[in-house]
Amino acid sequence: MIRRIKCIVEYDGSSFNGYQRQAQTHVRTVQYEIERLFQKLHQKDITIHSSGRTDTGVHALGQVFHFDTDLPIPLERWKDILNRKLPFDIYIRQMEEVSKDFHSRFHAVCKEYHYHISLNEYDPFKARYCNFINQPLDVNKMKHAIQYFIGTHDFTGFSSDQHPLKDKERTIHDAKIVEDNGNVTIIFRGTGFLRYQVRIMVGTLIEIGMNKRDDTTIETIFDTKNRSNAGYTAEPQGLYLMNVEYN
Amino acid sequence: MIRRIKCIVEYDGSSFNGYQRQAQTHVRTVQYEIERLFQKLHQKDITIHSSGRTDTGVHALGQVFHFDTDLPIPLERWKDILNRKLPFDIYIRQMEEVSKDFHSRFHAVCKEYHYHISLNEYDPFKARYCNFINQPLDVNKMKHAIQYFIGTHDFTGFSSDQHPLKDKERTIHDAKIVEDNGNVTIIFRGTGFLRYQVRIMVGTLIEIGMNKRDDTTIETIFDTKNRSNAGYTAEPQGLYLMNVEYN
Repeated sequence: MIRRIKCIVEYDGSSFNGYQRQAQTHVRTVQYEIERLFQKLHQKDITIHSSGRTDTGVHALGQVFHFDTDLPIPLERWKDILNRKLPFDIYIRQMEEVSKDFHSRFHAVCKEYHYHISLNEYDPFKARYCNFINQPLDVNKMKHAIQYFIGTHDFTGFSSDQHPLKDKERTIHDAKIVEDNGNVTIIFRGTGFLRYQVRIMVGTLIEIGMNKRDDTTIETIFDTKNRSNAGYTAEPQGLYLMNVEYN
Repeated sequence: MIRRIKCIVEYDGSSFNGYQRQAQTHVRTVQYEIERLFQKLHQKDITIHSSGRTDTGVHALGQVFHFDTDLPIPLERWKDILNRKLPFDIYIRQMEEVSKDFHSRFHAVCKEYHYHISLNEYDPFKARYCNFINQPLDVNKMKHAIQYFIGTHDFTGFSSDQHPLKDKERTIHDAKIVEDNGNVTIIFRGTGFLRYQVRIMVGTLIEIGMNKRDDTTIETIFDTKNRSNAGYTAEPQGLYLMNVEYN
């Protein structure tokens, strides 16, 4: 009997070449490591389907994927079996059986990303896990500017994807900044994000906080749909995929 | 004019083959990376002298080394110059000019090590930085047992160093265990530690906490001076050199 299983997975992205399996064999990606284990367990190739890719160096606390299996392993034993054999930087947090028409990517309705910035003195133990900005940031100005992202917009100017026929309209439900003792967390929750979109939005906000831009810059980028008007692509190590929501 | 400079350095040991430079070139060690940068700055070989080595995977928040330099760089500029060029996992926290007879190793009078154990659910983001024990530990029993380490003892039974002519007597001033929400920190402060001594003391304590041993085991190991009576060598990733004291 074939069952479909949904998994919530955490990974420390710092030693991976991103999430997605690559054509060349032995490129260390998250998908490659998980599928390699599934291949050993099933003695045949098993493809896993995630909610979407993450880039090199980007982390996940709540990435979701599903796979189909005919192994007669009870659901409560699966998690232990996988975590015992996965590399140290991948951990399956939760598994559940879902109906055969569930799809991790097509049925995702909302994703939440967090981006961690530190304004404190450099700490080599945190270098893989946040972005150290070695100068003051006007966080209140950034808190004001981030409001402009909320709503439904064409995010062409905030993406590396310039394909003219692809729909670039996305909706951001929540966008906010939380500050605690020099740790600044930028939070976005929305229907989906284009390639590099979160990191370009964050890079634009950082440049606003550095007073290199004012906050009207965001509306200008929406209007002109021109990537070169936006800020730099913020470093990947601060970014975390926190949660994927389904109906 | 030649000056001697004392440095306090932090490093995340997880991507190094230990602290000490090795005979083979290009083995990535902490000493190798720092001396390589000093060689570039001075245009000649500069040797750094640390308080002692740390093993592969072991971290430091307060390692100390000194070096001699004839570069006319003001002390207040040195730290920035070095940290800008050091790899992301090494950070010089503090630099000060010391007298020419100061020596990081010979004048160290006390060292403090912390060992971090987690009893919580596995977390891939902490796997490089603590030891996940996937079972309950009787921490109160460990707190009682650790008292036996305090004082002056021959630590031959707790070391990988079995050289018969070498003095194995050391003094442990403080030894204690702090527990906070499933995070167990084992703290040792003493005049010096033999090779693997802290990790073998910790491994013995872990086996006591697992009820594989009772706490009289420590006195038996002191009496017999036999490494094979002691516990396993605990994993390196939980260990941190916190501080080196000088008179």
